[in-house]
Amino acid sequence: MTPTENELILLTRRPQGNVDEDCFTFESQEISPPGPGEVHIRNIYLSCDPYLRLNMSSRFELGKPIPVRAVGEVVATADPRFAVGDVVWGFLAWERYSVARAADLTLVDSKLGPLSHAISVRGMIGLTAWVGMMSIGQPAPGDTVVVSAAAGAVGSVAGQLARLAGARVVGIAGGERKVSHVVENLGYDAAIDYKSGVSLKESLADACPDGVDVYFDNVGGTVLNAVLDQLGVGARLAICGGISQYQVEGQEETNLAKLMGSGATMKWFSIYDHLHELPAFVTRMARLVGEGKIVYYEDIADGFENVIPAFLGLFRGENLGKRLVRVSDEP
Amino acid sequence: MTPTENELILLTRRPQGNVDEDCFTFESQEISPPGPGEVHIRNIYLSCDPYLRLNMSSRFELGKPIPVRAVGEVVATADPRFAVGDVVWGFLAWERYSVARAADLTLVDSKLGPLSHAISVRGMIGLTAWVGMMSIGQPAPGDTVVVSAAAGAVGSVAGQLARLAGARVVGIAGGERKVSHVVENLGYDAAIDYKSGVSLKESLADACPDGVDVYFDNVGGTVLNAVLDQLGVGARLAICGGISQYQVEGQEETNLAKLMGSGATMKWFSIYDHLHELPAFVTRMARLVGEGKIVYYEDIADGFENVIPAFLGLFRGENLGKRLVRVSDEP
Repeated sequence: MTPTENELILLTRRPQGNVDEDCFTFESQEISPPGPGEVHIRNIYLSCDPYLRLNMSSRFELGKPIPVRAVGEVVATADPRFAVGDVVWGFLAWERYSVARAADLTLVDSKLGPLSHAISVRGMIGLTAWVGMMSIGQPAPGDTVVVSAAAGAVGSVAGQLARLAGARVVGIAGGERKVSHVVENLGYDAAIDYKSGVSLKESLADACPDGVDVYFDNVGGTVLNAVLDQLGVGARLAICGGISQYQVEGQEETNLAKLMGSGATMKWFSIYDHLHELPAFVTRMARLVGEGKIVYYEDIADGFENVIPAFLGLFRGENLGKRLVRVSDEP
Repeated sequence: MTPTENELILLTRRPQGNVDEDCFTFESQEISPPGPGEVHIRNIYLSCDPYLRLNMSSRFELGKPIPVRAVGEVVATADPRFAVGDVVWGFLAWERYSVARAADLTLVDSKLGPLSHAISVRGMIGLTAWVGMMSIGQPAPGDTVVVSAAAGAVGSVAGQLARLAGARVVGIAGGERKVSHVVENLGYDAAIDYKSGVSLKESLADACPDGVDVYFDNVGGTVLNAVLDQLGVGARLAICGGISQYQVEGQEETNLAKLMGSGATMKWFSIYDHLHELPAFVTRMARLVGEGKIVYYEDIADGFENVIPAFLGLFRGENLGKRLVRVSDEP
């Protein structure tokens, strides 16, 4: 029997500065059965990502559900491409149940590994790390690679990819717990604690005496500026995200003149330009994880009522790895 | 008979802020005949380039001649690679005569076009435009390309290359004379006068309603920042020089966060990483100029005593095209 009652989270106020609980409203709604070409999904894992904060300021509609990636189980279908019991992922929303067009969903193959990985390491998160590090950063044996938010969802993969490609990898993370994690569990060669009180510029100079060849940036602002002062000749910078700047009005500025003639390349890439690479990537990453070459940590909260606290915690740097919320059980 | 007396310009004070005549001293010195492997050159054309200003702050040695590119005639030789009467170019100095290692000189073929072009459009200046526009900017038919210092030594070539590659080209230049020149003589589709009093941001929005796909930057600072506000998706920015910033202490800063996810690529290239491309480029550019596909303007001052005024004038934007000083006659 398919459910008829849904619970969802609406964006009801645009955040000014720091996002807080007052921006969201929980609501119950009836669900109609799926129409032709549609599928009805019981959501299992909902994604919490820093970039959502940016879209809450402008792109997302007020009074509407918040679009996020989710993994769920098909509970009713009006399309021949999916059967009841199939596990799928798609851009759904922070809600218990979703109705989606079959054309917008992708089957998740449980033989490839954990189901949740379809929206983390084996999904767009992992692809983001792959494109930024391998296509833009292009680490080579002997290179020094720096990754910020090194313990985070994307950074943790980016750093491990650079290590597999033969580079020396230095992570930047906040706090002792993350710094140890990055070196001990993720195999980084060194890590810098930006909260330690030591100047980041000095720490970078110590950790990267020959300069930084590749920088994978997840945070922007002060950290980016410190790395710009330590670049080697011909450095490649993959600019992925800027969590430090998402909630700030007066943003950190950079003197670009210092890069003159440096041979440096900075690319502000968007993963949406690379979605065609996802199918091949899924297979590749499943193999790397299966062989233990990439280890991946997820930071999973439980319960639909915890979606907002889990999301807000991202901006306090709470999470070790990819933050997800489990809102119902795996099949 | 080879000369025994030379006249040269020494850097005797490092410029603070704006460079002026007090930084330089004219001196007479005796010249010894060329030793083994050396060649004695009567300089004809001396180069004046904005980038020299940067090197005067640190890289160039105090009390020494100022290294610049020059074209000259061999007047004595102690190396079999060159004969008296050959025209050569090399990194020589602001001086009437130079003694140089034959290995550091390149023969100039007068059949390829004007001799002076060996250190302008057919030389490193032209190669700078070529690398920045073609390898980094990669203009395609239908693209909108913006070039700053559009009437200058490098910009004038960069803009014409983009036009030949099928793009729509918008130049930025200072003053009515340059703006007309760029459109009427160089074939740009449009030009913006940054000195007109109209906001550069508005002018760019008018001239580039679909956004800027390629930006070739010769000036940095305010102009670069205005272009950053008008980028199209996936824009390519070739950062070549920053004449507006060379003499400034507190430099214009940029909020990089606005580029997040834009797909933009910025490369601060150095022509010294591309010198191996020069021989093939010389042939290519000689053909393009010979066929009239690229027109090139040189702004040639006369007389060794005018080297410093010609150089200082660059920072007042006096020059239309490449500034050179003719210090003796062509053979």
